[in-house]
Amino acid sequence: MSEQEEMRDRPIGVFDSGVGGLTVAREIMRQLPNERIVYFGDTARVPYGSKSPETIIKFSRQIARFLQTQNVKAIVIACNSASSCAVEALEREVELPIIDVVRPGAKTAVSATKNNKIGVIATEATIGSGIYSRYIQEQNADAMVLSKACPLFVPLVEEGLWEDPVTDEIAGRYLTELIDVGIDTLILGCTHYPIIRSTIGRIMGDGVTLVNPAYETARELKSLLQEKGLESSHRPGLGTELYRFFVSDAADKFQKFANSILTYGILSAKVINIDEY
Amino acid sequence: MSEQEEMRDRPIGVFDSGVGGLTVAREIMRQLPNERIVYFGDTARVPYGSKSPETIIKFSRQIARFLQTQNVKAIVIACNSASSCAVEALEREVELPIIDVVRPGAKTAVSATKNNKIGVIATEATIGSGIYSRYIQEQNADAMVLSKACPLFVPLVEEGLWEDPVTDEIAGRYLTELIDVGIDTLILGCTHYPIIRSTIGRIMGDGVTLVNPAYETARELKSLLQEKGLESSHRPGLGTELYRFFVSDAADKFQKFANSILTYGILSAKVINIDEY
Repeated sequence: MSEQEEMRDRPIGVFDSGVGGLTVAREIMRQLPNERIVYFGDTARVPYGSKSPETIIKFSRQIARFLQTQNVKAIVIACNSASSCAVEALEREVELPIIDVVRPGAKTAVSATKNNKIGVIATEATIGSGIYSRYIQEQNADAMVLSKACPLFVPLVEEGLWEDPVTDEIAGRYLTELIDVGIDTLILGCTHYPIIRSTIGRIMGDGVTLVNPAYETARELKSLLQEKGLESSHRPGLGTELYRFFVSDAADKFQKFANSILTYGILSAKVINIDEY
Repeated sequence: MSEQEEMRDRPIGVFDSGVGGLTVAREIMRQLPNERIVYFGDTARVPYGSKSPETIIKFSRQIARFLQTQNVKAIVIACNSASSCAVEALEREVELPIIDVVRPGAKTAVSATKNNKIGVIATEATIGSGIYSRYIQEQNADAMVLSKACPLFVPLVEEGLWEDPVTDEIAGRYLTELIDVGIDTLILGCTHYPIIRSTIGRIMGDGVTLVNPAYETARELKSLLQEKGLESSHRPGLGTELYRFFVSDAADKFQKFANSILTYGILSAKVINIDEY
């Protein structure tokens, strides 16, 4: 087998602070069924969204080092907070293609908007980084970007209140300003948010396009693999560990949540000590 | 200065996964005004309540090692999740008096109940450990203990929804079972919960005694220091760094929250790298 063929057979590394990135992994599974995935969820240190950029960079570096020990051919940062704070550091330091979720989301929103008023909802870390505004305005200097941190969405999703009056009430409070400004496009800038997409969509109304960066991220990954000749050419057989899951804590809880998100039932998740990387 | 005098002048180490333990620190400040405090909040890895016992023990060990570098004379585990999972490990490994928040809370509840029906509300980690039930039943084999994990209380408190219809609604859902069973005593088994004490009290009604372990923990600390001859004999003067605060991330955010809880304005919090301990 040539070196290039060996490279093509390697898995994609996907990471997140916890379970949210599974919405991105799910989209990669759909769009790139030939690709193997090694997923890492940092469940010992979740959430990232309320933490500082320095800490998020440090955690992301450790994870990138771990994924490299798993022989991945590319890394997908399936977490908006880590994408916002750490993508530049990882691109400098890691000799592998890196895909983040922010740039694809920004790009899609710029294509989708008609009135140039784009909303972004995300964690405090992502909003604080200002990165969505930067990417959007690089592509469309006329775009007005209204950002809103929604810190309670992650715990509400993790508690399973996906369709619940409490989630409606909290979403109503967070989204009012965005409605008042008249945005026509809203980026779901946290990988947990697509899970409550129907609540957000109902409150925003039919006139607003919801952008889920997961879809565009998987497309971007596909193009990048094609461009670099790194696409897997065949669907891996059973027994080749198509998808492997690692976490830094509480594998049982992760598996339970993962099985509610992925149509493909995950067999198991293995706990590793991420501090050692 | 004799060795014993030198020991007496040392600070008390107090730690928590984040800001919740400040409710315990506040009680120590009130009841033991002569004592210096070194507080550590593990803001890089908060929350602990949803994590596994193994991870909580590992984090607590690192913190105990850090506090020992600060020359503390005793350690207060001001976090129910860490008390539940790690107190025994720390007692075995650390040669200092260790006070946790669970045993004092259990003791107070046993004294307070008249109908032997005690409720405990806490994080998943604390409830999962079963430790409140164990301590309560060791002291009163007839007591019936009803435990309920309330995972949304911490994010609601941290978002500042201390008096809010959403917090009322969520509290109503969590507390219904406890009301139905007819408990007469309820332990606030997470250091964040005293902050929404008035909401919890209104829902439970006048017939239910709310136990805040912080008060009893500070009393227990006082007795222990007296017993061991370790009480500070004089109020430290200005400039002696009466209270020092360390965190593992985001000092600004910690300071802001701390200043809303402590009457004593904290001057600053210093970020340390807790992984190194």
